Amino acid sequence: MNVQLVSTQPPKMPNPTKIESEVRSYCRNFTTTFVSALGSHMVASNGRKYIDFLAGCSALNYGHNDPDLVDCLKEYIGFNGVTLGLDLHTQAKEGFIETFAHKILRPRSLSYRLQFAGPTGTNAVEAAMKLVRKVTGRSQIVAFTGGFHGVSLGSLAATGNSHHRAGAHVPLTNVMRAHFDGFFGVHIDTADLLDRSLSDPSSGFDKPAAFLLETVQGEGGLNAASKDWVRSIAEVARKHGALLIVDDIQAGCGRTGSFFSFEEFGIEPDIITLSKSLSGIGLPMSLVLMKPEYDQWLPGEHNGTFRGNCMAFVTAAETIRKFWSNGNLTADVKRRGQLVYQTLWSLARLTPEYRVKGRGMFLGLDVGTGERASAISKRCFENGLIIETSGSYGEVVKVLAPLTTPDEVLSQGLAILSDAVEAETRRLS
Amino acid sequence: MNVQLVSTQPPKMPNPTKIESEVRSYCRNFTTTFVSALGSHMVASNGRKYIDFLAGCSALNYGHNDPDLVDCLKEYIGFNGVTLGLDLHTQAKEGFIETFAHKILRPRSLSYRLQFAGPTGTNAVEAAMKLVRKVTGRSQIVAFTGGFHGVSLGSLAATGNSHHRAGAHVPLTNVMRAHFDGFFGVHIDTADLLDRSLSDPSSGFDKPAAFLLETVQGEGGLNAASKDWVRSIAEVARKHGALLIVDDIQAGCGRTGSFFSFEEFGIEPDIITLSKSLSGIGLPMSLVLMKPEYDQWLPGEHNGTFRGNCMAFVTAAETIRKFWSNGNLTADVKRRGQLVYQTLWSLARLTPEYRVKGRGMFLGLDVGTGERASAISKRCFENGLIIETSGSYGEVVKVLAPLTTPDEVLSQGLAILSDAVEAETRRLS
Amino acid sequence: MNVQLVSTQPPKMPNPTKIESEVRSYCRNFTTTFVSALGSHMVASNGRKYIDFLAGCSALNYGHNDPDLVDCLKEYIGFNGVTLGLDLHTQAKEGFIETFAHKILRPRSLSYRLQFAGPTGTNAVEAAMKLVRKVTGRSQIVAFTGGFHGVSLGSLAATGNSHHRAGAHVPLTNVMRAHFDGFFGVHIDTADLLDRSLSDPSSGFDKPAAFLLETVQGEGGLNAASKDWVRSIAEVARKHGALLIVDDIQAGCGRTGSFFSFEEFGIEPDIITLSKSLSGIGLPMSLVLMKPEYDQWLPGEHNGTFRGNCMAFVTAAETIRKFWSNGNLTADVKRRGQLVYQTLWSLARLTPEYRVKGRGMFLGLDVGTGERASAISKRCFENGLIIETSGSYGEVVKVLAPLTTPDEVLSQGLAILSDAVEAETRRLS
Amino acid sequence: MNVQLVSTQPPKMPNPTKIESEVRSYCRNFTTTFVSALGSHMVASNGRKYIDFLAGCSALNYGHNDPDLVDCLKEYIGFNGVTLGLDLHTQAKEGFIETFAHKILRPRSLSYRLQFAGPTGTNAVEAAMKLVRKVTGRSQIVAFTGGFHGVSLGSLAATGNSHHRAGAHVPLTNVMRAHFDGFFGVHIDTADLLDRSLSDPSSGFDKPAAFLLETVQGEGGLNAASKDWVRSIAEVARKHGALLIVDDIQAGCGRTGSFFSFEEFGIEPDIITLSKSLSGIGLPMSLVLMKPEYDQWLPGEHNGTFRGNCMAFVTAAETIRKFWSNGNLTADVKRRGQLVYQTLWSLARLTPEYRVKGRGMFLGLDVGTGERASAISKRCFENGLIIETSGSYGEVVKVLAPLTTPDEVLSQGLAILSDAVEAETRRLS
Repeated sequence: MNVQLVSTQPPKMPNPTKIESEVRSYCRNFTTTFVSALGSHMVASNGRKYIDFLAGCSALNYGHNDPDLVDCLKEYIGFNGVTLGLDLHTQAKEGFIETFAHKILRPRSLSYRLQFAGPTGTNAVEAAMKLVRKVTGRSQIVAFTGGFHGVSLGSLAATGNSHHRAGAHVPLTNVMRAHFDGFFGVHIDTADLLDRSLSDPSSGFDKPAAFLLETVQGEGGLNAASKDWVRSIAEVARKHGALLIVDDIQAGCGRTGSFFSFEEFGIEPDIITLSKSLSGIGLPMSLVLMKPEYDQWLPGEHNGTFRGNCMAFVTAAETIRKFWSNGNLTADVKRRGQLVYQTLWSLARLTPEYRVKGRGMFLGLDVGTGERASAISKRCFENGLIIETSGSYGEVVKVLAPLTTPDEVLSQGLAILSDAVEAETRRLS
Repeated sequence: MNVQLVSTQPPKMPNPTKIESEVRSYCRNFTTTFVSALGSHMVASNGRKYIDFLAGCSALNYGHNDPDLVDCLKEYIGFNGVTLGLDLHTQAKEGFIETFAHKILRPRSLSYRLQFAGPTGTNAVEAAMKLVRKVTGRSQIVAFTGGFHGVSLGSLAATGNSHHRAGAHVPLTNVMRAHFDGFFGVHIDTADLLDRSLSDPSSGFDKPAAFLLETVQGEGGLNAASKDWVRSIAEVARKHGALLIVDDIQAGCGRTGSFFSFEEFGIEPDIITLSKSLSGIGLPMSLVLMKPEYDQWLPGEHNGTFRGNCMAFVTAAETIRKFWSNGNLTADVKRRGQLVYQTLWSLARLTPEYRVKGRGMFLGLDVGTGERASAISKRCFENGLIIETSGSYGEVVKVLAPLTTPDEVLSQGLAILSDAVEAETRRLS
Repeated sequence: MNVQLVSTQPPKMPNPTKIESEVRSYCRNFTTTFVSALGSHMVASNGRKYIDFLAGCSALNYGHNDPDLVDCLKEYIGFNGVTLGLDLHTQAKEGFIETFAHKILRPRSLSYRLQFAGPTGTNAVEAAMKLVRKVTGRSQIVAFTGGFHGVSLGSLAATGNSHHRAGAHVPLTNVMRAHFDGFFGVHIDTADLLDRSLSDPSSGFDKPAAFLLETVQGEGGLNAASKDWVRSIAEVARKHGALLIVDDIQAGCGRTGSFFSFEEFGIEPDIITLSKSLSGIGLPMSLVLMKPEYDQWLPGEHNGTFRGNCMAFVTAAETIRKFWSNGNLTADVKRRGQLVYQTLWSLARLTPEYRVKGRGMFLGLDVGTGERASAISKRCFENGLIIETSGSYGEVVKVLAPLTTPDEVLSQGLAILSDAVEAETRRLS
Repeated sequence: MNVQLVSTQPPKMPNPTKIESEVRSYCRNFTTTFVSALGSHMVASNGRKYIDFLAGCSALNYGHNDPDLVDCLKEYIGFNGVTLGLDLHTQAKEGFIETFAHKILRPRSLSYRLQFAGPTGTNAVEAAMKLVRKVTGRSQIVAFTGGFHGVSLGSLAATGNSHHRAGAHVPLTNVMRAHFDGFFGVHIDTADLLDRSLSDPSSGFDKPAAFLLETVQGEGGLNAASKDWVRSIAEVARKHGALLIVDDIQAGCGRTGSFFSFEEFGIEPDIITLSKSLSGIGLPMSLVLMKPEYDQWLPGEHNGTFRGNCMAFVTAAETIRKFWSNGNLTADVKRRGQLVYQTLWSLARLTPEYRVKGRGMFLGLDVGTGERASAISKRCFENGLIIETSGSYGEVVKVLAPLTTPDEVLSQGLAILSDAVEAETRRLS
């Protein structure tokens, strides 16, 4: 192995306590204490090293502690760079804007304004939802089955998951539900259903302010919309005077190969939300992109203390310079995605109920039930692989390896996964 | 001056661009680009040094780039500590929990569970609002005039500011409004009004799930509730079966002298929200504290990618160790608050309409109109002091110096402020 | 007695059944079956005659089966007059409009447009709430403590009673609560509290579309607002760009002496809702009056099958001709109200906790507790008087005798009431 | 003609005034003033007699002023029967309950409790919506495309028509929309779509309290659901723990042949709402039927002044005795419906875009556009026939003749309709 961990002996810290809230979840499945991490590996306090196919739920697309990003951060800290800048002008913010404009927007001939919302994905979605309501004077927003957009009250209304929805304990309002691509199988075009629902003036489907769409639904179970469907949806939105928001918080930042998940679809969303892997190194950051004509905000109308997280701006700019100055990463994702896909495809042949889902390096294996997927995840963890499940029933084993995972490590992880799937398939059949 | 800036010549970055959204606000008043910062000073790209009495809106209570916190962060980065841990067990999280339990909770005989919400204040408030609704089975939450709790849809309903409220473009629901201490002057006890409103079964004031209270309202204009009133409110809440949430996001972390803003009041809130200065160094972090009997969350019921911001956990633990192991900071805040208070009190004698407001180092000078306050802020900035306004009309000049500001620097800043107030008072009278 | 009942032997009908829903209420207290009624008397199936001080909750201000109204209805039925006309032009509707314009509006120099909503009070309130939201572009409506405006979802949000509110089982939204005259006693001017709440831009009290006000709250406990307070409220509404809706459903149609309850206050509401006694004979009918400039409805925007209840139009027109062509009824109400008032005032001297409330013939005796009021009502019924309670705790014995009750009958009823109050006062003291 | 109008010279009434609100609608199309009516005819003030195929939007299923009902009402008035009884026990109410139980429920082996809501359809729907939310503890209610359930705030959320929905000027909440039978054509089973939407725990379709269904949608355009679909919907409701409310306000009371519109489908709704033709004579009345186990109301939890409209109870009981003691009316509706159907079917052959819709005597001709339907209605009116349009675009000419229309009158009306359709078809082709 080529991973060099600087240290597995961190400074002494006290034993864990028992007072963290019951709301904790991942740590219930991955029952160890992690200390350090590098690339696609995490190291536990007992010294054990794990391959990480969770990658912070796609917030660590470039792996843990990329050395160049770490150096960049060290340098910034070294000269006492501003850490928190609210929305003051800071060199860090300006550097990010400049880099994003030159390396991301310009090469794609895109023209967007940038808003830094509070540094979480949900906050970016909340901002986008406000903005489309303001711009259109309409209150309803169309969200899709299986969508996940966050759990603050506004974005939660758009999230499909009933476990999260039930947490609100007040009705979730001003969101209409439409069906994602393939929800009713291949023979029913759900974009057409939506168009017809919105076209009939007595349907009860009010004209919406926007459609809020993930092109690939991560939490929903690696549901990848087809190019044709996404293009249809974009047209239906325009036809009915609704803006198109692409929530690229999980699918963007290269997870599907291109920087934005929709690039190969030939659409230009009116608004885009980004977060998760933006900072490259796991620091909280989010971004709302809007076409200039929709930048109708008043000063400070949406705000938040941490919207100027300058350390994140600095590493985000460096991330773009390092990974998005050429097509290497996109090629890597294509190749590695293919590797993952082939493995999953082989596993899917084990039984007719299995199915490969997703796109790019945003792939999963539907194993039919949450119980089986959970058992596979558990077995993987015992064998040194961190991998999670998603989908309506938790039935999809989700491969979210860092995009930068060396092919060798990727193969190691996939081997562990294959063993686990095979073992569980045997055990339960 | 004793401030040592490591560097005012940061690595070359490109010029600022023109594509940041119209939503930006602070940078419209403080029209320079900041590069680095140390202690209570910020340095602009033209080399000019400013005294900072804004302090990230109280998110930088310990000043910029405290050397010990910076060292701690460098060390953590140095051994490739986990940066983003979701809610996995990490040494960083455990270290924070342990430190918080030993240094904050135990000495105060407090017993709370800890929830790490998405790392913003608004997310902590959203979590708290969900939880009280779940625990009580009631939907309404009482919020107070002048309150500010964030701008995501749930917390925005509780925020009083009409500029922010208007941003929602849908009705804000499930929050009832009550009047903060002194809203109707000294002769009307608003806690009593609330009690009587809730006591009458035909009043239309539904029994609420909780009261959501800031003991000092920063954005609302440095309105400091009295001990008696806060105690009354706590009693009224209990009487009507409502939980008491103290939103200590801005007033907590020492701003009023004690770690929690309510310590001297002898109350124990059912739920406390913290954020802003938690990490000590400006990294996004938030915390919801709840009495164990109210920790009724299901696993993952409220979640968020960045709830495990480990760099923040590490600096937050170090912050507590450094500043809250003894009573020195509290004593400093008392002394420095007195210094600020005396200056403001002198200024308040300039004209009968001026008034000093606030508590601890959370003080402001009400100068009657937003125009005058704004002119004072502008003049201060010209003379090297960053200082902002707040209040219903922006009429309060808000002194939010870092708690660690050396007395000498504090005096320098107050001198600039005094000159500006005097000049504007002369000019406009 | 001078009452001549045409018949107490109606056509044979089957025995009562046991399948009426649990929602029934009045019949639980007045446990007999009523057959016929005339003037201020009702006759039960066992032949017993009761004096009626309930009067259909003020829907029978002119007594039961006024002979002229009955004749008018018979005549209309006799020539097969249209019974249900939707909002077609009918002679019945035109007759009512003409009469209302000439006899009610013109003498009072009032200029209003007439809308016939579905024939219930709650429907009129729903229409008014829609209209003010449309006209102002604002969503919030101010309703007052103790107010009762109906129980359909829109009007229920404005109703204060917690028993009724709890029936919604969804949050009631878009209504803000203000305090009725005297809610906090005589020393606090609640109109001023409301003005100050609405004046502060950070109060969280959004600018409302309208104030929705009863000048005397019947269900709330015979709370009569003072002239000064009502005038203040009208001014506060205008100051903040809110329309003033007077809900005169219970207090109007002469209950306080004048046709509208606000006539002596010198105000002109922007919108008025009427129902209950409009038809004079108990037939369902409602009316929304709006200043012409606010008649911004689109055709059919608010509708309802029974909005053209022509029998009610015919008797309503006759009611106006008979009772509102001169000042006799107003004088009668003044005299009879005085009679009731004196009796209640004497009773109130029995113990310091008793209090007389109300205005005109809209009076009640607050006896301190719902238990006592209920016992009084029960005792009255045993002695031949139908009388109900209201108020937050049901603590007010409510005298709602028909306005046309002959003084002798009124005295008989008051004597029964006096005996009951005295007996219960003795029993419980 | 066999119609005997008692009088076309009513007592003198003043000329119409100009102060009725802009909200008026039907009178804009049928521009005359109606005076009297008998059976299936209405007579205008100029003496002209019209055939009525509008029938109060199905509120006059038994024609205008049925002589037996008129006699019954006269008799009741004659002995000064109670007119308005709140929910006191009255002989009138008991008589209705008894009759309804014996003549409607018992022969159909149905067991329901009876609730008298405020006497409008929308009020019955509001009550039903409250009750299902209470019983299930769920807030969402599924309503269908094209549904019409009233325009008060609760029921309006369930109504599909965008013109009416836009009148609310606040968001309409707590209703989810599903697609009525045939909305997507014959090849897509919308009951199956709904089942699959509700089955997926991440769909965002919350488990609903109830489905709210019209078996034939009158306002929606005479959309008649098939037996299979209705049965499927009933099963889907049960499967997901939702109650089934059949809103039979327009389709019930014999309009489709049987008393309830669903009788031939073999389902038993959990809750049924009735209104419109209940009283037989156009008097406002409504009824909520609920299975006994769902009668979980508290006393008075839903109320309304006119819920005890005794004149309506009396005529309603007589209506049932006269028309529902045997199968004659059902046979008549079958025969007459066939007559109407054949006429419409012939007209539909005029051009491929025409289509016959509906069931029983609840039929319409879809003529493709609202303009054409409106022109046909106008031409009919010129020729002595009152007939209206419905549907999403007003494209359906709606035949709502009284069920009791003599065949000869029915033929006369259909002849006028045929002429108009043919003329307009020629003119526009």
